[in-house]
Amino acid sequence: MTVDPDSGLLSPVRAGTPAEASTGDEAWLRAMLDAEAALARAQARLGTVPPEAAEAITQAAGSARIDVVELARGARATANPVVGLVKALTSAVGELAPGAAEYVHRGSTSQDIFDTAMMLVADRTLRPLAADLDATAEALSGLARAHRHTTMAGRTLTAHAVPTTFGLKAAGWRQLVLDAAVRIRGVLDGGLPVSLGGAAGTLAAYLEYARLAGEAGGGGGGGDYAERLTAAFAEETGLAVPVLPWHTLRTPVADLAGALAFTAGALGKLAVDVATLSRTELGEVAEPSADGRGGSSAMPHKRNPVLATLIRSAALQVPVLAAGVTQSMLAEDERSAGVWHAEWQLVRECLRLTGGAAHTAAELARGLTAEPGRMRANVASTHGLIVSERLSAVLAPLLGKAEAKELLGEASRRAVREDRPLRDVLDELPAITDVLTPTALDDLLDPAGYTGAAADLVDHALGSGGGPEPDGSA
Amino acid sequence: MTVDPDSGLLSPVRAGTPAEASTGDEAWLRAMLDAEAALARAQARLGTVPPEAAEAITQAAGSARIDVVELARGARATANPVVGLVKALTSAVGELAPGAAEYVHRGSTSQDIFDTAMMLVADRTLRPLAADLDATAEALSGLARAHRHTTMAGRTLTAHAVPTTFGLKAAGWRQLVLDAAVRIRGVLDGGLPVSLGGAAGTLAAYLEYARLAGEAGGGGGGGDYAERLTAAFAEETGLAVPVLPWHTLRTPVADLAGALAFTAGALGKLAVDVATLSRTELGEVAEPSADGRGGSSAMPHKRNPVLATLIRSAALQVPVLAAGVTQSMLAEDERSAGVWHAEWQLVRECLRLTGGAAHTAAELARGLTAEPGRMRANVASTHGLIVSERLSAVLAPLLGKAEAKELLGEASRRAVREDRPLRDVLDELPAITDVLTPTALDDLLDPAGYTGAAADLVDHALGSGGGPEPDGSA
Amino acid sequence: MTVDPDSGLLSPVRAGTPAEASTGDEAWLRAMLDAEAALARAQARLGTVPPEAAEAITQAAGSARIDVVELARGARATANPVVGLVKALTSAVGELAPGAAEYVHRGSTSQDIFDTAMMLVADRTLRPLAADLDATAEALSGLARAHRHTTMAGRTLTAHAVPTTFGLKAAGWRQLVLDAAVRIRGVLDGGLPVSLGGAAGTLAAYLEYARLAGEAGGGGGGGDYAERLTAAFAEETGLAVPVLPWHTLRTPVADLAGALAFTAGALGKLAVDVATLSRTELGEVAEPSADGRGGSSAMPHKRNPVLATLIRSAALQVPVLAAGVTQSMLAEDERSAGVWHAEWQLVRECLRLTGGAAHTAAELARGLTAEPGRMRANVASTHGLIVSERLSAVLAPLLGKAEAKELLGEASRRAVREDRPLRDVLDELPAITDVLTPTALDDLLDPAGYTGAAADLVDHALGSGGGPEPDGSA
Amino acid sequence: MTVDPDSGLLSPVRAGTPAEASTGDEAWLRAMLDAEAALARAQARLGTVPPEAAEAITQAAGSARIDVVELARGARATANPVVGLVKALTSAVGELAPGAAEYVHRGSTSQDIFDTAMMLVADRTLRPLAADLDATAEALSGLARAHRHTTMAGRTLTAHAVPTTFGLKAAGWRQLVLDAAVRIRGVLDGGLPVSLGGAAGTLAAYLEYARLAGEAGGGGGGGDYAERLTAAFAEETGLAVPVLPWHTLRTPVADLAGALAFTAGALGKLAVDVATLSRTELGEVAEPSADGRGGSSAMPHKRNPVLATLIRSAALQVPVLAAGVTQSMLAEDERSAGVWHAEWQLVRECLRLTGGAAHTAAELARGLTAEPGRMRANVASTHGLIVSERLSAVLAPLLGKAEAKELLGEASRRAVREDRPLRDVLDELPAITDVLTPTALDDLLDPAGYTGAAADLVDHALGSGGGPEPDGSA
Repeated sequence: MTVDPDSGLLSPVRAGTPAEASTGDEAWLRAMLDAEAALARAQARLGTVPPEAAEAITQAAGSARIDVVELARGARATANPVVGLVKALTSAVGELAPGAAEYVHRGSTSQDIFDTAMMLVADRTLRPLAADLDATAEALSGLARAHRHTTMAGRTLTAHAVPTTFGLKAAGWRQLVLDAAVRIRGVLDGGLPVSLGGAAGTLAAYLEYARLAGEAGGGGGGGDYAERLTAAFAEETGLAVPVLPWHTLRTPVADLAGALAFTAGALGKLAVDVATLSRTELGEVAEPSADGRGGSSAMPHKRNPVLATLIRSAALQVPVLAAGVTQSMLAEDERSAGVWHAEWQLVRECLRLTGGAAHTAAELARGLTAEPGRMRANVASTHGLIVSERLSAVLAPLLGKAEAKELLGEASRRAVREDRPLRDVLDELPAITDVLTPTALDDLLDPAGYTGAAADLVDHALGSGGGPEPDGSA
Repeated sequence: MTVDPDSGLLSPVRAGTPAEASTGDEAWLRAMLDAEAALARAQARLGTVPPEAAEAITQAAGSARIDVVELARGARATANPVVGLVKALTSAVGELAPGAAEYVHRGSTSQDIFDTAMMLVADRTLRPLAADLDATAEALSGLARAHRHTTMAGRTLTAHAVPTTFGLKAAGWRQLVLDAAVRIRGVLDGGLPVSLGGAAGTLAAYLEYARLAGEAGGGGGGGDYAERLTAAFAEETGLAVPVLPWHTLRTPVADLAGALAFTAGALGKLAVDVATLSRTELGEVAEPSADGRGGSSAMPHKRNPVLATLIRSAALQVPVLAAGVTQSMLAEDERSAGVWHAEWQLVRECLRLTGGAAHTAAELARGLTAEPGRMRANVASTHGLIVSERLSAVLAPLLGKAEAKELLGEASRRAVREDRPLRDVLDELPAITDVLTPTALDDLLDPAGYTGAAADLVDHALGSGGGPEPDGSA
Repeated sequence: MTVDPDSGLLSPVRAGTPAEASTGDEAWLRAMLDAEAALARAQARLGTVPPEAAEAITQAAGSARIDVVELARGARATANPVVGLVKALTSAVGELAPGAAEYVHRGSTSQDIFDTAMMLVADRTLRPLAADLDATAEALSGLARAHRHTTMAGRTLTAHAVPTTFGLKAAGWRQLVLDAAVRIRGVLDGGLPVSLGGAAGTLAAYLEYARLAGEAGGGGGGGDYAERLTAAFAEETGLAVPVLPWHTLRTPVADLAGALAFTAGALGKLAVDVATLSRTELGEVAEPSADGRGGSSAMPHKRNPVLATLIRSAALQVPVLAAGVTQSMLAEDERSAGVWHAEWQLVRECLRLTGGAAHTAAELARGLTAEPGRMRANVASTHGLIVSERLSAVLAPLLGKAEAKELLGEASRRAVREDRPLRDVLDELPAITDVLTPTALDDLLDPAGYTGAAADLVDHALGSGGGPEPDGSA
Repeated sequence: MTVDPDSGLLSPVRAGTPAEASTGDEAWLRAMLDAEAALARAQARLGTVPPEAAEAITQAAGSARIDVVELARGARATANPVVGLVKALTSAVGELAPGAAEYVHRGSTSQDIFDTAMMLVADRTLRPLAADLDATAEALSGLARAHRHTTMAGRTLTAHAVPTTFGLKAAGWRQLVLDAAVRIRGVLDGGLPVSLGGAAGTLAAYLEYARLAGEAGGGGGGGDYAERLTAAFAEETGLAVPVLPWHTLRTPVADLAGALAFTAGALGKLAVDVATLSRTELGEVAEPSADGRGGSSAMPHKRNPVLATLIRSAALQVPVLAAGVTQSMLAEDERSAGVWHAEWQLVRECLRLTGGAAHTAAELARGLTAEPGRMRANVASTHGLIVSERLSAVLAPLLGKAEAKELLGEASRRAVREDRPLRDVLDELPAITDVLTPTALDDLLDPAGYTGAAADLVDHALGSGGGPEPDGSA
């Protein structure tokens, strides 16, 4: 039986990245086997499964060679792959230790295994993802610090507005990446629980087997055993303990998707800005070039912002995918007919697209270079108009608000029309030269002198206000 | 280099279906190679590529063994897999016929090949999909015809409203499936064009090579050659001719996603109804059972509506995926930095989820059985209240609207409260028995007598109004 | 009871547009009253309602003053506003003609009225919307024709690729707008049907009243009457006849949302291109300026692409809204508990955002100006690199593909590094000057000479291939 | 100029709710005026605006009568309503205190005012929303406690699986509602910051005016003043202090939308379960009935789950709307041309739909009644099959797993086929009666004895393990 590889051919943003490896069919199968083994060990710790059976199950789960394609196709008969997995694992255990086979999946239900596996896959994907976010933020810190005073055009609605600095821009990207890291870590720190509910969320069969094994505890409804089993399962998997079985209480999945969508969006902002600033006419940043990246076979001069392109491609997909996951909170009954099943592929795609984007962003941030010369040239290209806001503010009290506005508007239009520096036009206006000295005008028209709190905001965001300037530009 | 299979482990709705086979990485690679070969043959037909070179390219494209994983990872450097593909194909052609290698991808651009391949993949997926829709509709026709008079409860906002027939229900499902088939065929019939624009949509390099080969035609801007090349490429691929190059005019992709989202929604309606009617308490339909399908290992009595579950899982995903595709219409410039790239995986998922759902729906429709006994029992369970609308209509002119309403409301509440047939309660009310004979009451209270135009609507929808009833129930 | 206006404060794209007027609460109320009146008239035509009652209902529906706020709040008790509407209308009819009151909403159900009203609102919104698309396309035709030879940079992944013409760009925008118009007209021409099904889609009560009035026809299931009533209702409303009652067969609504999402996307492409080309550094197009539009109070020099901004704001919203509508196809039973209700506001927003965007696009297209001078300057800014693809094609056969590529790559890099025209660099390379004369080089390096089939594609798209050039530039 | 009201006619879930009042156009206008006044007061505290001017601005902002329709239509010229608002407010201030007019909006930008207003609107909507979540959770606590032992069918994939209790179901709903409340409060506690960045996020004009007023501080880049102004603005509005100006760093908006989508999903789970359990055939819960709610004019017997319907209608919309907001994180430059603008209406709809849903949920939870008798009857309807999982567990060690399974499967099928209690069938099987006494069988077949840890899970979730049972059912 041949099967297509899942190579990322249509999703280069994650091709070959850690997130691809940790979310593929084999990784998911591995996580389901890990969940079965951990469940057996947890039951063994509580005395309802013989330790040697748990040991055999763990061993078989580790070494079983299960045909994932067969499993997938078999899942059409039951709407999930766990039924087939249990059969295969039971058979593998039986070969290893016949007496242990009956303890496989004891008291369990497909969703306990599948959802626990989903959380394991998430955990294994989010950890490197968080590290990539850290690396991205670290690299952006460096850019922000180095360029806290590097003047560039602030742009609104595509037009030059007032000057800003590239450092502030980088600090903003970093802030979003940090915000994303906080949300990802929030999920990692307690948001990824084991799933343990049995057939309909009451753990009844787990308790029944414990009762039969004489372990369900003295009185009560078995709540104590349920609690201890959940805790043991959590310890064996490294996942968290949920308040309640969550077969149709999808907080963990919705939170996961939400954090991933946020992260994709945060990285997407970086990507659209890099793409914009890379435009031929702007040329204010350049992506790292390596081994032919960004090249075009037909057009030898091109250097495309491919990393930004890849990241953006992910950022455009994840929010809608995540919406599908959020909608899956509307799961009827104790297990939905289809709503649960709709989550799986969506969650996987959210994980690997965002993981791939974070990996790509780290590469981008580490290699991104600014072009201060181009930034200066672009700022200058509007002949001083970029500081017209400042002139308005200064002239209003000197000339009256209305007259100042009219005068400046006319001067600006003339500078544009005649393609001359605004300064030259102003020099010809006695109303201006009467109230501002040439030196004052020089100062007011210097874009680098009108970056507001940009540099301080960078320091504030980076959490440091002093020390020598690494770029010596202050 | 190992790689995960793409087995549908998380997407059993398409595991092993034709749509899976026609949309995988290998299928996409095949389609890209087909596009390259067709382009060479088209150019050969117009005299700009030697016929034997086109032949060699076609042969190499057919037999080349290209590592899709390597291609995918290499795509990170250029943001698309075609650059690597061209290199690999050129090398394969070179081994076969050194002189032909330079004609590979001549004048072309990655997007021409990729988008044409996407249309080929779509074509190859939509054809069996349409056939599955036909099969589904055909099976539903049979159900509709057989059950045009089978009375069941019509339900609104989860409550019994008035009677309907299962035949009308099935006819409605069929109508949606037919609507979907019309939309899919609309896309197949002209909505899947070749992509041919060259680097920026002007076909300049194609024309330049033609000019160098002395084939660009006498005067003009080369428009005639462009038109002929596009037509030849379309013929060689079996795809349609677009009005304009559509690198960033995404009508074909948006239409494709739109038709697939509609289809998924149409099948989803069938699925939610089957799941609802399968509820233990309703039991009005049963999915086909085969080889353990729908079984539960832990609960031997269960028979789950797994086919409906699978279909619904697809129907919940495709609309949001398709929204991502529609948004990709907002592609800036002549080729977007990321928007185009966001389409690929979304389109593939739309194709294979919907294709899988259609395949599953055909299986469901062919094997679905109705349970008229349960339908009757459920209709009867509300003691006659299901025809209260009719009683209102009949009694209003006899008693006055207000009095009729009050009387019926009170009788209904009493029937519910005392768990008695409405008929018994009515029999005790002289205001009723004074105006309606026992026979008239019998008639009015017969649910089968109040199915309105249900049977005629079935006939109308099926396009036949006469002939003997196959079920003899009329 | 005071109530907020719905002024478009947060949605300026539709503020004051026809789509706003035709989709507001009052317009929806009007449409529901129109549906009730049309239903009465349709029944009168078939003899089940006295003509004078239908007349009175029509009159009352036209003049009734119904408090929409009260209606909205009352709708919380029944989950739809029609129950309250019927009460209010009945009372209004009662005042006018007491005997007619009982014929209001006879045999009907809330969904028949609401859905018919939705189709009326859609019809009333799509007609001006289609006209705005026509106007947009017409204006873009003018731009395309005038600028069929106006050379500008073709851009891919934000970088200059090869030259194109502004005319081809405009022709592409027009093509998308035409595609949208075709889809909108497709919906208008038969896709907007009346809704007529009665309580559960069987038309039972309509038939019962007809039977009581002695009009249901001789034998059969009343299908003939149902068909005639539907036809009469369609005639009275100007809407189409559906194949089946569609309470939970949501083809008309899904098609409507699909066409609107497509249209929003088509207009969004225009918007992102206009915004991009308006960038300060590009300056290749300018939006029409009028009465302070695009101004900034603080920055007197700014001229923002506000129309493109408004259109894009709509285009970013409609696809996700429409996805919600498509998902609503999964409506269980004969009327869903919540899925139907989720459609309403989404459909309205799709209508008014897209309608507003189309209105805005017409204004934008009519006033958009191209700046050929800036286009030329931008093309020239890369020193000739924009035609490197052409040089590659020409030099490959002269020098060998590999050598040509290496030579050109090095020359390109040098031109960039030294900020010199590529021509100057080439002139210093004997390998080049040996094979190409200065005149040949001049020709090859002229961007206007390498626009491929751009002009012919414009003609082809506009459906005209000849005539004098309006811009005289040919 | 007349304008439609925004009455919730198409959105009854929020008609007349607090969320409607706090999100309408007038509320938004109020919030923008509040932001302008707070900004003036903040500047006054720092000495850059005269206190009496701030006072006059505050007074005028409180009393100004501004035509919201005119504002909305005027916003088409500038793509936002603040430009017009500033004009109107300046004029109102001028009438009150001519000298104060020039201090209106001093140094500010439209986005500072609009985004701060959006956060104010969010704050004002989230507070009652959180209270409604609390009320919902409180009412569900009561249901959970009262019904911790009330046995009902646990259902998976629409079929009876094993027993559960209604208390556990209610505890699960409550848990989701609590999870939502945590997320909403997380946003309220620091997630709603003021927006203060000036034209391009550097606060340059604020600093310039401070410099002119001699207040920008000694040296440095004005960072200290920027920090103090932001803090003062936050104090005056009651909002939080952001790390950086967030014009295009959309964490606050994405978080808000994320929390609302989660909340809508959480409430949607409650709604789909209530709707399901309300089905005529199930009848296990009933919505509170009041003043004709849930009634049908045509069908006097109906009692629709209208509150669940309303809540579900919201829950189906919010996730896709929120996806649109998340995507708006991809905002290019210092202010995007259209992406920012796409947020506004989406955010408003998320707020009022979710607010309305929470208000409706509180009403639903407070009045929801369980029908233990129907629950019992439904559990019994499958003749004991609902505990087959338990029998399997018990019989396996007694008979061997395979034989137990086969025996039980056959007995189950016979019970269904012959419509007899499973117990009767088992009594006839010596293989069973040999190993289990009648009393043991009675115990094993009692559904109430197989609810696993349900009751303990309720206690655990409610945070209480003891005390007398309110329902005395233990």
